[in-house]
Amino acid sequence: MTPAELDVTFAALADPTRRAILARLASGDASVNELAEPFEMSQPAISKHLRVLERAGLVSRGRDAQRRPRRLEARPLEAATAWLETYRKYWEANYEALDALLAEMQPGKKRTRRRKQGRTR
Amino acid sequence: MTPAELDVTFAALADPTRRAILARLASGDASVNELAEPFEMSQPAISKHLRVLERAGLVSRGRDAQRRPRRLEARPLEAATAWLETYRKYWEANYEALDALLAEMQPGKKRTRRRKQGRTR
Repeated sequence: MTPAELDVTFAALADPTRRAILARLASGDASVNELAEPFEMSQPAISKHLRVLERAGLVSRGRDAQRRPRRLEARPLEAATAWLETYRKYWEANYEALDALLAEMQPGKKRTRRRKQGRTR
Repeated sequence: MTPAELDVTFAALADPTRRAILARLASGDASVNELAEPFEMSQPAISKHLRVLERAGLVSRGRDAQRRPRRLEARPLEAATAWLETYRKYWEANYEALDALLAEMQPGKKRTRRRKQGRTR
Protein backbone atom coordinates (compact mmCIF):
# COMPACT_ATOMS: atom_id res chain seq x y z
CA MET A 1 0.00 0.00 0.00
CA THR A 2 1.38 3.42 -0.93
CA PRO A 3 1.52 6.31 1.58
CA ALA A 4 -1.31 8.01 -0.36
CA GLU A 5 -3.48 4.89 -0.01
CA LEU A 6 -2.80 4.80 3.73
CA ASP A 7 -3.77 8.51 3.86
CA VAL A 8 -7.20 7.94 2.30
CA THR A 9 -7.81 4.77 4.33
CA PHE A 10 -7.09 6.42 7.69
CA ALA A 11 -9.03 9.55 6.65
CA ALA A 12 -12.02 7.38 5.67
CA LEU A 13 -11.92 5.68 9.08
CA ALA A 14 -11.81 9.00 10.97
CA ASP A 15 -15.60 9.35 11.05
CA PRO A 16 -18.14 7.49 13.24
CA THR A 17 -20.80 7.27 10.49
CA ARG A 18 -18.33 5.77 8.03
CA ARG A 19 -17.14 3.25 10.62
CA ALA A 20 -20.80 2.39 11.33
CA ILE A 21 -21.43 1.88 7.59
CA LEU A 22 -18.50 -0.55 7.48
CA ALA A 23 -19.89 -2.36 10.54
CA ARG A 24 -23.29 -2.63 8.83
CA LEU A 25 -21.73 -3.96 5.60
CA ALA A 26 -19.77 -6.50 7.63
CA SER A 27 -23.09 -8.24 8.31
CA GLY A 28 -24.01 -8.27 4.61
CA ASP A 29 -24.22 -6.23 1.41
CA ALA A 30 -26.74 -3.37 1.47
CA SER A 31 -28.24 -0.74 -0.83
CA VAL A 32 -27.85 2.98 -0.12
CA ASN A 33 -31.46 3.09 1.13
CA GLU A 34 -30.85 0.19 3.49
CA LEU A 35 -27.67 1.85 4.71
CA ALA A 36 -29.37 5.22 5.28
CA GLU A 37 -32.23 3.76 7.40
CA PRO A 38 -30.57 3.29 10.81
CA PHE A 39 -28.67 6.59 10.66
CA GLU A 40 -31.47 9.19 10.55
CA MET A 41 -29.43 10.82 7.84
CA SER A 42 -30.45 11.89 4.34
CA GLN A 43 -29.59 9.60 1.44
CA PRO A 44 -27.29 12.26 -0.09
CA ALA A 45 -25.39 12.52 3.21
CA ILE A 46 -24.94 8.74 3.28
CA SER A 47 -23.93 8.75 -0.40
CA LYS A 48 -21.23 11.30 0.37
CA HIS A 49 -19.81 9.09 3.11
CA LEU A 50 -20.00 6.11 0.73
CA ARG A 51 -17.98 7.98 -1.89
CA VAL A 52 -15.22 8.56 0.68
CA LEU A 53 -15.27 4.84 1.55
CA GLU A 54 -15.26 3.87 -2.15
CA ARG A 55 -12.31 6.15 -2.90
CA ALA A 56 -10.42 4.38 -0.11
CA GLY A 57 -11.31 1.01 -1.65
CA LEU A 58 -13.21 0.03 1.51
CA VAL A 59 -16.56 -0.34 -0.27
CA SER A 60 -17.41 -1.66 -3.74
CA ARG A 61 -20.65 -1.75 -5.77
CA GLY A 62 -22.41 -4.97 -6.70
CA ARG A 63 -23.66 -5.78 -10.21
CA ASP A 64 -27.40 -5.60 -9.48
CA ALA A 65 -28.32 -2.51 -11.55
CA GLN A 66 -31.45 -1.79 -9.47
CA ARG A 67 -30.11 -1.99 -5.94
CA ARG A 68 -26.41 -1.33 -6.57
CA PRO A 69 -25.64 -3.13 -3.30
CA ARG A 70 -22.54 -1.96 -1.49
CA ARG A 71 -20.03 -4.50 -0.24
CA LEU A 72 -17.31 -4.30 2.39
CA GLU A 73 -13.78 -4.58 0.96
CA ALA A 74 -11.53 -5.36 3.90
CA ARG A 75 -8.11 -5.37 2.21
CA PRO A 76 -7.28 -1.71 2.99
CA LEU A 77 -8.09 -2.47 6.65
CA GLU A 78 -5.50 -5.22 6.55
CA ALA A 79 -2.88 -2.80 5.18
CA ALA A 80 -3.74 -0.23 7.87
CA THR A 81 -3.43 -2.95 10.53
CA ALA A 82 -0.05 -4.00 9.13
CA TRP A 83 1.19 -0.40 9.48
CA LEU A 84 -0.11 -0.16 13.06
CA GLU A 85 1.37 -3.55 14.00
CA THR A 86 4.89 -2.16 13.50
CA TYR A 87 4.25 -0.16 16.69
CA ARG A 88 3.05 -3.13 18.75
CA LYS A 89 6.35 -3.41 20.64
CA TYR A 90 5.95 0.18 21.84
CA TRP A 91 2.58 -0.26 23.48
CA GLU A 92 3.69 -3.63 24.86
CA ALA A 93 6.77 -1.90 26.32
CA ASN A 94 4.35 0.43 28.15
CA TYR A 95 2.63 -2.57 29.71
CA GLU A 96 5.99 -4.02 30.73
CA ALA A 97 6.89 -0.72 32.36
CA LEU A 98 3.56 -0.82 34.23
CA ASP A 99 4.22 -4.41 35.32
CA ALA A 100 7.64 -3.37 36.58
CA LEU A 101 6.12 -0.45 38.49
CA LEU A 102 3.49 -2.71 40.07
CA ALA A 103 6.22 -5.21 41.01
CA GLU A 104 8.22 -2.42 42.65
CA MET A 105 5.18 -1.41 44.68
CA GLN A 106 4.84 -4.94 46.09
CA PRO A 107 6.57 -5.27 49.46
CA GLY A 108 9.20 -7.90 50.22
CA LYS A 109 10.91 -8.00 46.85
CA LYS A 110 14.65 -7.75 46.63
CA ARG A 111 16.21 -4.72 45.00
CA THR A 112 18.35 -6.77 42.61
CA ARG A 113 15.21 -8.42 41.27
CA ARG A 114 13.47 -5.09 40.80
CA ARG A 115 16.38 -3.65 38.87
CA LYS A 116 16.05 -6.29 36.21
CA GLN A 117 12.59 -5.12 35.23
CA GLY A 118 13.19 -1.82 33.52
CA ARG A 119 11.58 -0.31 30.51
CA THR A 120 12.65 -2.12 27.39
CA ARG A 121 12.62 1.07 25.32
CA MET B 1 -11.58 4.32 23.55
CA THR B 2 -14.55 6.52 22.65
CA PRO B 3 -15.68 7.05 19.02
CA ALA B 4 -14.38 10.64 19.24
CA GLU B 5 -10.95 9.37 20.32
CA LEU B 6 -10.88 6.93 17.40
CA ASP B 7 -11.82 9.85 15.10
CA VAL B 8 -8.85 11.98 16.16
CA THR B 9 -6.47 9.02 16.14
CA PHE B 10 -7.36 7.94 12.58
CA ALA B 11 -7.37 11.59 11.42
CA ALA B 12 -3.91 12.09 12.94
CA LEU B 13 -2.62 9.00 11.08
CA ALA B 14 -4.03 10.19 7.73
CA ASP B 15 -0.93 12.21 6.87
CA PRO B 16 2.50 10.98 5.70
CA THR B 17 4.47 13.62 7.65
CA ARG B 18 2.67 12.76 10.89
CA ARG B 19 3.28 9.03 10.33
CA ALA B 20 6.96 9.83 9.64
CA ILE B 21 7.15 11.84 12.90
CA LEU B 22 5.80 8.82 14.79
CA ALA B 23 8.35 6.59 13.06
CA ARG B 24 11.15 9.00 14.07
CA LEU B 25 9.91 9.09 17.69
CA ALA B 26 9.78 5.30 17.73
CA SER B 27 13.59 5.35 17.60
CA GLY B 28 13.80 7.80 20.51
CA ASP B 29 12.50 11.06 21.99
CA ALA B 30 13.29 14.18 19.96
CA SER B 31 12.94 17.97 20.18
CA VAL B 32 10.91 19.92 17.62
CA ASN B 33 14.16 21.07 15.96
CA GLU B 34 15.42 17.50 15.71
CA LEU B 35 12.07 16.41 14.29
CA ALA B 36 12.01 19.22 11.72
CA GLU B 37 15.50 18.46 10.33
CA PRO B 38 14.83 15.46 8.04
CA PHE B 39 11.56 16.89 6.66
CA GLU B 40 12.73 20.08 4.88
CA MET B 41 9.74 21.69 6.53
CA SER B 42 9.56 24.81 8.66
CA GLN B 43 9.46 24.41 12.43
CA PRO B 44 5.94 25.97 12.60
CA ALA B 45 4.71 23.41 10.05
CA ILE B 46 6.16 20.57 12.13
CA SER B 47 4.72 22.12 15.30
CA LYS B 48 1.27 22.14 13.68
CA HIS B 49 1.56 18.42 12.88
CA LEU B 50 2.79 17.78 16.44
CA ARG B 51 -0.27 19.53 17.88
CA VAL B 52 -2.52 17.17 15.89
CA LEU B 53 -0.54 14.19 17.20
CA GLU B 54 -0.65 15.56 20.78
CA ARG B 55 -4.42 16.08 20.62
CA ALA B 56 -4.75 12.42 19.58
CA GLY B 57 -2.59 11.41 22.56
CA LEU B 58 0.02 9.94 20.20
CA VAL B 59 2.79 12.28 21.32
CA SER B 60 3.61 13.70 24.77
CA ARG B 61 6.13 16.30 25.97
CA GLY B 62 9.04 15.47 28.23
CA ARG B 63 9.97 17.44 31.35
CA ASP B 64 13.22 18.97 30.09
CA ALA B 65 12.20 22.65 29.96
CA GLN B 66 14.86 23.53 27.38
CA ARG B 67 14.34 20.81 24.78
CA ARG B 68 10.75 19.82 25.50
CA PRO B 69 11.47 16.43 23.92
CA ARG B 70 8.53 14.75 22.29
CA ARG B 71 7.78 11.12 23.05
CA LEU B 72 5.77 8.49 21.20
CA GLU B 73 2.65 7.38 23.09
CA ALA B 74 1.57 4.14 21.46
CA ARG B 75 -1.64 3.41 23.40
CA PRO B 76 -4.00 5.07 20.87
CA LEU B 77 -2.35 2.93 18.16
CA GLU B 78 -3.27 -0.15 20.19
CA ALA B 79 -6.90 0.98 20.37
CA ALA B 80 -7.00 1.68 16.62
CA THR B 81 -5.52 -1.77 15.98
CA ALA B 82 -8.14 -3.37 18.23
CA TRP B 83 -10.90 -1.71 16.18
CA LEU B 84 -9.33 -2.88 12.89
CA GLU B 85 -8.82 -6.41 14.23
CA THR B 86 -12.60 -6.90 14.42
CA TYR B 87 -12.50 -6.98 10.58
CA ARG B 88 -9.70 -9.54 10.33
CA LYS B 89 -12.12 -12.37 9.46
CA TYR B 90 -13.33 -10.38 6.43
CA TRP B 91 -9.95 -9.94 4.81
CA GLU B 92 -9.07 -13.52 5.72
CA ALA B 93 -12.32 -14.62 4.02
CA ASN B 94 -11.07 -12.84 0.88
CA TYR B 95 -7.89 -14.92 0.96
CA GLU B 96 -9.94 -18.10 1.40
CA ALA B 97 -12.02 -17.13 -1.63
CA LEU B 98 -8.79 -16.57 -3.59
CA ASP B 99 -7.45 -19.95 -2.46
CA ALA B 100 -10.70 -21.57 -3.61
CA LEU B 101 -10.44 -19.82 -6.98
CA LEU B 102 -6.84 -20.96 -7.43
CA ALA B 103 -7.83 -24.50 -6.48
CA GLU B 104 -10.59 -24.41 -9.11
CA MET B 105 -8.08 -23.29 -11.72
CA GLN B 106 -5.84 -26.29 -11.02
CA PRO B 107 -6.51 -29.11 -13.48
CA GLY B 108 -7.41 -32.65 -12.42
CA LYS B 109 -9.46 -31.81 -9.34
CA LYS B 110 -12.87 -33.36 -8.92
CA ARG B 111 -15.93 -31.16 -9.05
CA THR B 112 -17.29 -32.35 -5.71
CA ARG B 113 -14.08 -31.25 -4.04
CA ARG B 114 -14.17 -27.88 -5.73
CA ARG B 115 -17.71 -27.23 -4.59
CA LYS B 116 -16.72 -27.50 -0.94
CA GLN B 117 -14.45 -24.49 -1.16
CA GLY B 118 -16.79 -21.56 -1.50
CA ARG B 119 -16.57 -18.09 -0.09
CA THR B 120 -17.18 -18.15 3.61
CA ARG B 121 -18.94 -14.78 3.58
